[in-house]
Amino acid sequence: MPRIITRNAAAPQGGYVPGLRLPDFEGARAGFAAGTDTPRALLERGLAIIAAREGEVRAFAHLDIEGARVAADAATARHAAGRALSPLDGCPIAIKDTLAVRGMPGEMNSAIFQGHVDTLDAACVGALRAAGAVILGKTQVPELTIGRAPPTRNPFDATRTAGASSSGSGAAVGAGMVPVAIGNQTGGSLIRPSSFNGIYGFKPSWGALNVAGMHAVAPSQDHIGPMAASLADAWRVAWEISARAGGHNGHPGLTGTAAPPAALRPLRLAFLRTRGWAELDAATEEAFLGVRHALEAAGVTLVEASQDGALAEAERLLLEADRISNDIIMYEARWPYGAWLAAHGEAKMGEAVRARIAHGFTMTPADYRRALAERDAIRRAIAAIGARVDGFVTLASSGPAPQDGAASDQAGAHLKTGSRSFLSPWSMIGGPSLSLPVMAVDGMPLGLQLMGLPDTDAGLFAVATWVDGVFGE
Amino acid sequence: MPRIITRNAAAPQGGYVPGLRLPDFEGARAGFAAGTDTPRALLERGLAIIAAREGEVRAFAHLDIEGARVAADAATARHAAGRALSPLDGCPIAIKDTLAVRGMPGEMNSAIFQGHVDTLDAACVGALRAAGAVILGKTQVPELTIGRAPPTRNPFDATRTAGASSSGSGAAVGAGMVPVAIGNQTGGSLIRPSSFNGIYGFKPSWGALNVAGMHAVAPSQDHIGPMAASLADAWRVAWEISARAGGHNGHPGLTGTAAPPAALRPLRLAFLRTRGWAELDAATEEAFLGVRHALEAAGVTLVEASQDGALAEAERLLLEADRISNDIIMYEARWPYGAWLAAHGEAKMGEAVRARIAHGFTMTPADYRRALAERDAIRRAIAAIGARVDGFVTLASSGPAPQDGAASDQAGAHLKTGSRSFLSPWSMIGGPSLSLPVMAVDGMPLGLQLMGLPDTDAGLFAVATWVDGVFGE
Repeated sequence: MPRIITRNAAAPQGGYVPGLRLPDFEGARAGFAAGTDTPRALLERGLAIIAAREGEVRAFAHLDIEGARVAADAATARHAAGRALSPLDGCPIAIKDTLAVRGMPGEMNSAIFQGHVDTLDAACVGALRAAGAVILGKTQVPELTIGRAPPTRNPFDATRTAGASSSGSGAAVGAGMVPVAIGNQTGGSLIRPSSFNGIYGFKPSWGALNVAGMHAVAPSQDHIGPMAASLADAWRVAWEISARAGGHNGHPGLTGTAAPPAALRPLRLAFLRTRGWAELDAATEEAFLGVRHALEAAGVTLVEASQDGALAEAERLLLEADRISNDIIMYEARWPYGAWLAAHGEAKMGEAVRARIAHGFTMTPADYRRALAERDAIRRAIAAIGARVDGFVTLASSGPAPQDGAASDQAGAHLKTGSRSFLSPWSMIGGPSLSLPVMAVDGMPLGLQLMGLPDTDAGLFAVATWVDGVFGE
Repeated sequence: MPRIITRNAAAPQGGYVPGLRLPDFEGARAGFAAGTDTPRALLERGLAIIAAREGEVRAFAHLDIEGARVAADAATARHAAGRALSPLDGCPIAIKDTLAVRGMPGEMNSAIFQGHVDTLDAACVGALRAAGAVILGKTQVPELTIGRAPPTRNPFDATRTAGASSSGSGAAVGAGMVPVAIGNQTGGSLIRPSSFNGIYGFKPSWGALNVAGMHAVAPSQDHIGPMAASLADAWRVAWEISARAGGHNGHPGLTGTAAPPAALRPLRLAFLRTRGWAELDAATEEAFLGVRHALEAAGVTLVEASQDGALAEAERLLLEADRISNDIIMYEARWPYGAWLAAHGEAKMGEAVRARIAHGFTMTPADYRRALAERDAIRRAIAAIGARVDGFVTLASSGPAPQDGAASDQAGAHLKTGSRSFLSPWSMIGGPSLSLPVMAVDGMPLGLQLMGLPDTDAGLFAVATWVDGVFGE
């Protein structure tokens, strides 16, 4: 049996227990059917946790409690009438402040957008509403998603960061305030906070979920995805978005079935030892070794570079992954960041943002073309391995959430979130990746990252469901 | 020698002369170097034409004459100092009202956007400004680009349409008001008005020019491109945008060199007889026959379906091109059109827009996936032929601009712009296409369309330059 731990207002904040299971929407929905629970009651349980913990965690940039109650009541009535709009009807969801929600502020922690209220729902938000989801509010992001850290604190230890740009979404789910939040990832912004906050992060294949209505950073690597209390919740949210809003840029949307894929035991997983592995601390290394032994004991072969020349070549190419990914992101991000700077001036854009975008303006078209060619070479190398394994595995972050103290709240403070080398590869490759909360280090959660080739989302989910089961029982 | 016809305030409006050459910026720039002309003087000549003809043509949704004069004076000073920013320094350019220009209204002929002023430059507009271009104003579009026709009239006959959604840009250049305007194409919106207005239209490969800051219609088919008085102007504008703003979605940008490609005689061109050919009137068919004979007399072989099985197969697949393209566009356009409707209601969205978007909401993800598969099959069929020819040729519209009288100015009036079957194929295929103003029917211009495989832009331009020379001498 999975260990089910309900964190709520009454529960003391404690160290993270690996294999922790937050109450998820899939479980709550069973209660709706049985008549023992309702969407409104579920929402109120989350609001109680928010009331108790938000003062410290600061996951939200905006809360629409009254709007959420109205939506939850409507969902409650639909469930009572046996007319649920979808398997997500009544699911409370928080939206990262990079995505437009009609009638809510969209400020991205930036002076430029202070007071801005969006008039439209982003495509994914409209899809979630149509599926009956309860849109509870907007979650914190660093300034313009790449600068000064937000005030958000890790729900397991308030002296630690909640992650990168989807930190508000990660903390809201990790604290048990909502079963699901929407995040987005361009360089690693969804998988890392999922690791830090002990939740399931799912970055679907590039293009599989419509990003329309999101503030673009680098269109060729921008992804949106769910950060959730369970794999089932993550899958259902991704699926309902895809079914209603489709993919983007000619991607036909998520493959698979509406129901979460059933567990499937992998035979072989490629163990990707990226550059950051050399810098891991002993406790993190040991946590991964424990996972590795458990997988091997369950009959899974972990293929290493020493046994596979193609994997060795891929790891060699990936030594440059952080630089390549940063080149691509910062070249593409020249718009809108450069246009914002031109229109609003330095006074309205923090030093950290300006420092990060400067690189893109030093690049030439030839530099960008070279970075794209390097990315293509990595994609080819990974594709060659992918045909022989059932997925790839690595850590979802270079360790548990680091302590960043009060620094994160100061202007110009940079995120202290560890090596990017665990995140850059799959942001560039565009395949699905998942963070599973199956490890703990220093009483803090640490995610295992599973990755697949582009458009193998359902297959990877089946493998992840099996892997998760190894640690949840 | 090309026949150079300067249309200006003093010149009577007359029938179109095929091979007409409008004064282009490339020619004006020679005068700057010789000290016989200046950017300010060039701008003033355009403003004189606007003063004389805009009351009838109504190409512009907004004019910033004072801002343009300031920019032209700055360019004049740079030229005098020998410090031009680029080969476009001082070039007056009009921007289609789908693209954001900082400080100018962006209303898209829609009640929803009435009074809206953009705060940022679209990526291409920022690039043009950085190259020294003089941004003169915004050009008319149908309501939200797909609905009620704008008031714009064809500069050669005010009883006729100026084209599809880039009609304001087409008319502004066709009337000689500006040497270049920026247009965009999702289904055919750039090439058709280029044909109707007797100008050079260039739709670069999909992704080669950054579309950021444009109101998206269907991201997988949205293109921007120049509509120009000459091929040289079209190339330089596209090149300077690409060099400064890059491509999008991971496209590295336009291939080739900064200088307009030199003329290259093609050996073989595939003649694409799309569905609409069956409905051509005799005068249009005859005009094309004249072109065909001239090309053959100059030594070019026109390959037809009867001689090439792959071409016959491609033409068979293209019988469905209009439906497939419309399926893809309308599925992708559900956002933002559906979100606009949800936020603003039917009162602010005209009947013609609502009628067009309705189809997308009847489609399922499976319908969209099927349309994408059909598009892929067409792309493969065209690619198989493309390797054996130097380009493809067809008409740029199903005839000269049709008469639409006063109807275009009425709410709910639909565009009467002829068969889409000449436009849908290359909107879907994503390769470069060009309209060359080398024919006349009933005293009205008619364009020849040249098309190439994706990312053969420079090669197609070289062929187009040669073909254009056949008719300009």
